[in-house]
Amino acid sequence: MATGRWLPLLLGLCGLVWGPSLAGAVNATRGPPNLVLLLMDDMGWGDLGVFGHPSKETPNLDQMASEGVLFPSFYAANPLCSPSRAALLTGRLPIRNGFYTTNAHARNAYTPQEIVGGIPESELLLPELLRKAGYVNKIIGKWHLGHRPEFHPLKHGFDEWFGSPNCHFGPYDNKAAPNIPVYRDGEMIGRYYEDFKIDHKTGEANLTQIYLQEALDFINAQQASQQPFFLYWAIDATHAPVYASREFLGTSQRGLYGDAVREIDSSVGRILNRLQKLGISENTFVFFTSDNGAALISAPKQGGSNGPFLCGKETTFEGGMREPAIAWWPGHIPPGQVNHQLANVMDLFTTSLALAGLQPPSDRQIDGIDLLPVILQGKLIDRPIFYYRGNEMMAVRIGLYKAHYWTWSNSWEQFSQGIDFCPGQNVSRVTTHTQEEHTKLPLLFHLGRDPGEKYPISFSSNEYQTVMERISPVVQQHKETLLPGQPQLNVCDRAVMNWAPPGCEKLGKCLEPPRSDPKKCFWPH
Amino acid sequence: MATGRWLPLLLGLCGLVWGPSLAGAVNATRGPPNLVLLLMDDMGWGDLGVFGHPSKETPNLDQMASEGVLFPSFYAANPLCSPSRAALLTGRLPIRNGFYTTNAHARNAYTPQEIVGGIPESELLLPELLRKAGYVNKIIGKWHLGHRPEFHPLKHGFDEWFGSPNCHFGPYDNKAAPNIPVYRDGEMIGRYYEDFKIDHKTGEANLTQIYLQEALDFINAQQASQQPFFLYWAIDATHAPVYASREFLGTSQRGLYGDAVREIDSSVGRILNRLQKLGISENTFVFFTSDNGAALISAPKQGGSNGPFLCGKETTFEGGMREPAIAWWPGHIPPGQVNHQLANVMDLFTTSLALAGLQPPSDRQIDGIDLLPVILQGKLIDRPIFYYRGNEMMAVRIGLYKAHYWTWSNSWEQFSQGIDFCPGQNVSRVTTHTQEEHTKLPLLFHLGRDPGEKYPISFSSNEYQTVMERISPVVQQHKETLLPGQPQLNVCDRAVMNWAPPGCEKLGKCLEPPRSDPKKCFWPH
Repeated sequence: MATGRWLPLLLGLCGLVWGPSLAGAVNATRGPPNLVLLLMDDMGWGDLGVFGHPSKETPNLDQMASEGVLFPSFYAANPLCSPSRAALLTGRLPIRNGFYTTNAHARNAYTPQEIVGGIPESELLLPELLRKAGYVNKIIGKWHLGHRPEFHPLKHGFDEWFGSPNCHFGPYDNKAAPNIPVYRDGEMIGRYYEDFKIDHKTGEANLTQIYLQEALDFINAQQASQQPFFLYWAIDATHAPVYASREFLGTSQRGLYGDAVREIDSSVGRILNRLQKLGISENTFVFFTSDNGAALISAPKQGGSNGPFLCGKETTFEGGMREPAIAWWPGHIPPGQVNHQLANVMDLFTTSLALAGLQPPSDRQIDGIDLLPVILQGKLIDRPIFYYRGNEMMAVRIGLYKAHYWTWSNSWEQFSQGIDFCPGQNVSRVTTHTQEEHTKLPLLFHLGRDPGEKYPISFSSNEYQTVMERISPVVQQHKETLLPGQPQLNVCDRAVMNWAPPGCEKLGKCLEPPRSDPKKCFWPH
Repeated sequence: MATGRWLPLLLGLCGLVWGPSLAGAVNATRGPPNLVLLLMDDMGWGDLGVFGHPSKETPNLDQMASEGVLFPSFYAANPLCSPSRAALLTGRLPIRNGFYTTNAHARNAYTPQEIVGGIPESELLLPELLRKAGYVNKIIGKWHLGHRPEFHPLKHGFDEWFGSPNCHFGPYDNKAAPNIPVYRDGEMIGRYYEDFKIDHKTGEANLTQIYLQEALDFINAQQASQQPFFLYWAIDATHAPVYASREFLGTSQRGLYGDAVREIDSSVGRILNRLQKLGISENTFVFFTSDNGAALISAPKQGGSNGPFLCGKETTFEGGMREPAIAWWPGHIPPGQVNHQLANVMDLFTTSLALAGLQPPSDRQIDGIDLLPVILQGKLIDRPIFYYRGNEMMAVRIGLYKAHYWTWSNSWEQFSQGIDFCPGQNVSRVTTHTQEEHTKLPLLFHLGRDPGEKYPISFSSNEYQTVMERISPVVQQHKETLLPGQPQLNVCDRAVMNWAPPGCEKLGKCLEPPRSDPKKCFWPH
């Protein structure tokens, strides 16, 4: 709706840059635009002012939205970090790229230090492809696609890396488990807690400032070199243990989590401002989103808000996978749009390729779609959103309808231990603590009338019949044609932990690994 | 925060109109500003795009906010319609102005057709006072301060009335209960369902268009007459049974409720547009809010959204009393502000008087404060918010902290019948189904970290001790000095229903009342 009124302006603007073939066209003189992907960690849909957080403490992100396009129906590829990030960079569902487990049914799996697997060599990652169009690619922050050397970013298309392969959990004792290393490019330069401090008591850490400076320096350097760049800014201040710099501590109404959000908001403002000051904002496509829903299990001090949505991280309810999302590209994206396209992080793969004038690989199934016709021409593309948990398609969304084929929050055993993915929420037959199969008669919700998934549509209604007739063939087709990848997250071994990462010897930080003892990883939920 | 940057601009602008004494000053040439109060019925905090509804279907209200000031911490005076409205127009808590019951402890009471009481003659209403400053006062829509003739708007300061004294419930059969009359000024001109159609099946009714036209006509007429005016636009399309005009039916992602919201949004846009076209927007103070939280019991088809807040209408949790709120006054209020002042509908009484250059009555306790220093000078005023349910102060908010002295959603008996004020929500020891007293050790929440009231602060924490030392004396002082008014909502009598309202004889619509049989009203929650 909001898009329509901008169309004439839009086409006028686009005419300056784009040829008759919009998507994929590359302006001859300017070259393809730079790409900046700002990926948050465990940030929830409801954490931004523009998405309704009562504190309204994200003026820079709200401004970014008012200058760009806001996607209220944008999704993660998975309710957990590693699979969602692997999907983003491959354009493929975790079930295809191998970022899942078959150790148990419908279990969330990621890449802790014990994990043996990582991103398969056979997967083609966005930066590998962007290289073909002359891009210089940098990742700043959390990788999370495998920490063993063969899985590292520089082996998969990135030219530069500043950050860590795993979550900043810890501190570890370097005996039972080593502290997580921080890398510059191919070698470690220190470890969290030892060389990069995070104070659990106060929540103080200056990591976001370090990541910001890395981003600004990279942007400056690339601007000078005149090469197009892809910056993947995957910061993690909103993942527990949450942290903020001293300057931001105590500044939020929301406590420590809010301090972290404020620092991120300020940093995003500075990045956009830098692009504008360097005169490259009109040649830089920026996208802001998060890897999965807010971790309500860590709330309120260490977890964010999913606004009106049900449950959080680890679940396939809306709170687990609906993400804040803003696209910003001054001079190309008309300001102040709201776009209700169903979209997800895998679309960023295909869209980035299109912006670079590249086609997605044709030798494999790609789940991401090119959002440029949506963003620039106001088209709405009919496509499903699949909600996976491990090896199971739990739910699907088509249009405003969502059908749950399986429901599960977590086990009674975990729940009784205080592990609660839906604190304060309890929807009968929906937020179940046993894995409930609904494949014969899926639970159907209308997310327009009922964004909180509280009122299943009656099985006997005409609406149910009509909608399921539309959804069922999509699901059937998806399942019938699905070729699952080799699961990468099945085997754990303490010997593969970050005992002696590349570069450790120069720092005297190599540790002795234990004897190899590979086992099936235990994924409790 | 956002206010600070506007202060110089603000003072510059204000200098054009205001003398040295800002609040209360009246420009000699222009006279006091017009007042337009747009009061919604059962609309929730989360229903507006600017407050985070995923549908983002309120472009006019969002625009109003971007041109004015948004209050994320604005409250109703009560979680139910009649008491909240009585408080708005008197500037006094329902416990003072009599809009409560003592029939049972902590019960919500309002003004159905059986009610014998209404707004006491001794109360001074806003329009009565505004008359002294030369205002012409009109109410359009729902009165709800008593339907017997002595309670009518024209007996309490309004010059004009178009609307109804009670809710548009029904249709009634005119035997057990008469259909609710619609008045023009002092006489009925028809009844709902008979003369003013509401189609329960389709949700179609053109009432909002009628109310809109009334508003536009009044504004035109007053502009021509050059008298200042107070327009109280108390429309009810979002109160069950929810309705929308044919033009809006089926236009929302949210179903019928969303259609009603879209029609209201469009209507507000037209009212603001009219003020601008007539050149009087800079001399008209407009405020948009609602009487209580969304009626979740009627959701999803007939009820709205309270965003991230707990429960809804009828409760003293945030969802019951936190309201959408926007002030708009071009040329005076700098655009795009967010203001975290704790405020409520009673402040609109005092603020309106200040705008009219009047002092609030000094012979009685007034609970509303003058918000002009907040809105125009960026001041933050330290003041409590009291959450009453009937005769009981259930909770109090001071700063970001809220202490519950009593908790109750509704009775087990009602709950087991499917009456649920907190659907899908269940916070242990908080959303209780028995009236739980916490007066010795109140349940304390930090609404910044925990807007959803899910995590009570530990009784043994320093934070609890420190905060309660601040809250306790405020509550003690409030209770010690409180002089409750005579309760007006205790007695019900079927004989007082709208059988034969003034004017019925001209229409041949007088009905025979039954024999008088006054009884204690039964208020189940």
